[in-house]
Amino acid sequence: MIKILKLELAHPSLKDNRGDADRLLAGLKKELKTDRIKIDLKMLKDIPDILRRCNYKVRCVLAEERDGFVLTMVVVADKEKIFAGIAVDLGTTMIALCLVNLETKEVMGEASFINPQVKIGADVLARIHYADDEKRRKELNRLVIDGINNNIKKLCASCSILPKDIYCLAIAGNTAMTHFFLSLPTKYLIREPYIPAVNTPPIFKADEIGLELNRFANIFVFPNIGSYFGGDIISGILFARMYEKEEVSIFTDIGTNAEVVLGNRDWLIGCAGAAGPALEGGAAKIGMQAGQGVIDKVVINENLEFEVCTIDNLHPIGICGSGLIDLAAQLFLYGFIDKRGRFVDSRCAERLIVKDEIKYLIIVKKGEYGADADITISSIDIDNLIRSKAAMFTILETVTRTVGVDFASLSDFFVAGTFGYFINPVSAISIGMLPNIPIERYKAIGNSSLKGAVLFLTEPKLIETVDKIRDMITYLELNVNQEFMSRFSGARFLPHTDAYL
Amino acid sequence: MIKILKLELAHPSLKDNRGDADRLLAGLKKELKTDRIKIDLKMLKDIPDILRRCNYKVRCVLAEERDGFVLTMVVVADKEKIFAGIAVDLGTTMIALCLVNLETKEVMGEASFINPQVKIGADVLARIHYADDEKRRKELNRLVIDGINNNIKKLCASCSILPKDIYCLAIAGNTAMTHFFLSLPTKYLIREPYIPAVNTPPIFKADEIGLELNRFANIFVFPNIGSYFGGDIISGILFARMYEKEEVSIFTDIGTNAEVVLGNRDWLIGCAGAAGPALEGGAAKIGMQAGQGVIDKVVINENLEFEVCTIDNLHPIGICGSGLIDLAAQLFLYGFIDKRGRFVDSRCAERLIVKDEIKYLIIVKKGEYGADADITISSIDIDNLIRSKAAMFTILETVTRTVGVDFASLSDFFVAGTFGYFINPVSAISIGMLPNIPIERYKAIGNSSLKGAVLFLTEPKLIETVDKIRDMITYLELNVNQEFMSRFSGARFLPHTDAYL
Repeated sequence: MIKILKLELAHPSLKDNRGDADRLLAGLKKELKTDRIKIDLKMLKDIPDILRRCNYKVRCVLAEERDGFVLTMVVVADKEKIFAGIAVDLGTTMIALCLVNLETKEVMGEASFINPQVKIGADVLARIHYADDEKRRKELNRLVIDGINNNIKKLCASCSILPKDIYCLAIAGNTAMTHFFLSLPTKYLIREPYIPAVNTPPIFKADEIGLELNRFANIFVFPNIGSYFGGDIISGILFARMYEKEEVSIFTDIGTNAEVVLGNRDWLIGCAGAAGPALEGGAAKIGMQAGQGVIDKVVINENLEFEVCTIDNLHPIGICGSGLIDLAAQLFLYGFIDKRGRFVDSRCAERLIVKDEIKYLIIVKKGEYGADADITISSIDIDNLIRSKAAMFTILETVTRTVGVDFASLSDFFVAGTFGYFINPVSAISIGMLPNIPIERYKAIGNSSLKGAVLFLTEPKLIETVDKIRDMITYLELNVNQEFMSRFSGARFLPHTDAYL
Repeated sequence: MIKILKLELAHPSLKDNRGDADRLLAGLKKELKTDRIKIDLKMLKDIPDILRRCNYKVRCVLAEERDGFVLTMVVVADKEKIFAGIAVDLGTTMIALCLVNLETKEVMGEASFINPQVKIGADVLARIHYADDEKRRKELNRLVIDGINNNIKKLCASCSILPKDIYCLAIAGNTAMTHFFLSLPTKYLIREPYIPAVNTPPIFKADEIGLELNRFANIFVFPNIGSYFGGDIISGILFARMYEKEEVSIFTDIGTNAEVVLGNRDWLIGCAGAAGPALEGGAAKIGMQAGQGVIDKVVINENLEFEVCTIDNLHPIGICGSGLIDLAAQLFLYGFIDKRGRFVDSRCAERLIVKDEIKYLIIVKKGEYGADADITISSIDIDNLIRSKAAMFTILETVTRTVGVDFASLSDFFVAGTFGYFINPVSAISIGMLPNIPIERYKAIGNSSLKGAVLFLTEPKLIETVDKIRDMITYLELNVNQEFMSRFSGARFLPHTDAYL
């Protein structure tokens, strides 16, 4: 996104009286072999003194844009100076930052913080409703911009640089978060036919939205495909490099929603789990968020005792999504639940309790593993898990069947998100959430939205690639897909009604 | 510079869920048959509501830039709305405005006012010295921007529109004035080798320099060739259309400086009168500024009596430059001055008076024509006139000889500026200020800088033409031209030492 180069210019004379900026631009155009270099008005005034001070030997920073370069900075050639860029993953719950040295391509530091919009509403929908009023939309915008500014300031301080040393920012997020970031209206995102204000936002300057970076820093926002398919996924595909492989691979991001992309260098097809009413809440509704003391692994032993592992080996306080998948797989395997996910009374025995007509299964008794209270899961938790696994699998099935690809032929199965790190593919396969393909093809790629943004900052000419990825993707609207709805019903069994696996 | 077009877009649907801005841009790209259309971040937020309010029938304003179009405005298709543009001639002394309806191409109104920077310094040099300090440079910038804003506001009010109805501004001025307008450093303009901060300023938005027009209005500043050859001349050449003629013609602008351009559609050569130390002050130093009661024409009759005409036929108060040329021609013709411009005592007789060792010739005696006092010219006035005419002629001669063109072969001799309206070519020829070509080839074109800017606003695709004109011009540096200096010495006689005419 940024090019840094040294240049020595011919000195002006009566016979070569070109203007300072024109002389500089001519030198850059020659060096970069392009005519498409622009200069910002606000830069012009500093150039005359800089050129003379450094005896016409300069170091220039150029920002790549869709239609060429823009001169962003001119400094004396030998000046010690760090040119940094920052990648941002703009999540609904968490915002992650990664500071990069643009010359060495090294990561200088990382940070993450809770999206300050959480205080307005935990989920996207609540924030969109809140933002119906323009004043409140500005408030949501202010929250996220201030949050990013403050955390960039802290991150810079910890890396001994200043925010003004940051010359570009690449940000990837879901479509609603991106709209809030750009202070765009969100109301049409959630009303049929679900139209974003923009798919491909223009590249603009930091100060246009109050970001406190170098004043000439360019901001790149990853484009979206639609209201439910955001730039975070495009960034993930960029990172997974699916768009350049010959073999067909699949990318899934299981977060608040579940997004899936299938394809190779010739075609990409995508769909998102929030597209159908059955999927509301999505995969993340199951279990609690991963954190200290949260159960992330459950094994039932031969004596039908439950063995649990917790994050950081602390006393158990609850169970996270991936732990729940493990648990459900074990419960099904040992007959604690039937194929509809209902508790089997005879097997559950004294582990089963009923409160307000809802059945709960005790996983960890108070006192075991140092637990302060019984840790239970309810029939509703199991039902949510089954709905989620059904949604996940149905999306995977629908998207592969639409293009006639077998799961078996997939070269890679990328699982993005924190969930991907913790999930045990064997368990996910055994409850029918993920297809039964060789385990080694599952690749947990972590925060691929952030990693794609980092890649974008450090490799040249990726704007065109990102635009190409966006344009390549055919978006499959699940909401209007009848086949999807019938498949979804069929997938609400453990592992499935058909012997697909 | 601006394109206005109506467009009807396909309604969005689940099968066509493109973002609002992307839908609009796709429509515009198809209509204009170009991929090069950009959109400003600040516009995005209004588009969703506008599109729905007008049922996807819109009227769009697009600004032409060097590398394509930028969407400037979207309104409901049938809304009554005036799209105006404003042309500005940014003179050292006077600033002229012309408000244009961009759809009908009609001039809506004109205005002119004294450049408020005059209170800092009457001439360019004084202002450049003042601007050495950055704070003062900002003060000069503020003066001109405020002056333009205030006068645009008044002009708009008189035409019943608002400044926010102005969608583009094209401004032409000399290089120093343009630098002040853009708040650029001017100190290197007057130091050898006389380098501007920029020749071709970027196109930018009104609010970037505090111009109170439509917030998305584009500002186009005519490019310069060098410190002494400004955008006002480029604009004049555009207006005179020299750059597209097959025949060779010449363009002169006699203001504070004298600028000359010679050429046709294949080549252009230019030079400026402030380039040599002998020309300091230039042609405008002679006489007073044209105004009520100023003598603009003098005839000596057979009885050697002086017959004068004044502007608006009021009592004479002084003599202007063009009047002085008339007078000098008559004085030489009737033997009142010799070929070196010295008063001939015997002929001047009692009209000659001496004060502080300087000789004065009485043109109008106190009481004649209602004059309140004697109106005189001094030997210094005559000397200045001769230096000016020598400078003018020498520039003309140098530039034509450099390319081997005869005066006789010139198809047109454009005389720009107020001076051009008042000058009597016969007198100017007879003192050797202008070459002896058929009178009808002299074309007084008035404020061609303003007229070129108006043309620029109303005809499509002139950005490229203006850049082409700028790049075509070979600038002849008179300061280092030995031949020029010897010709200049030779031209300090009436009409000349050689029988060139």
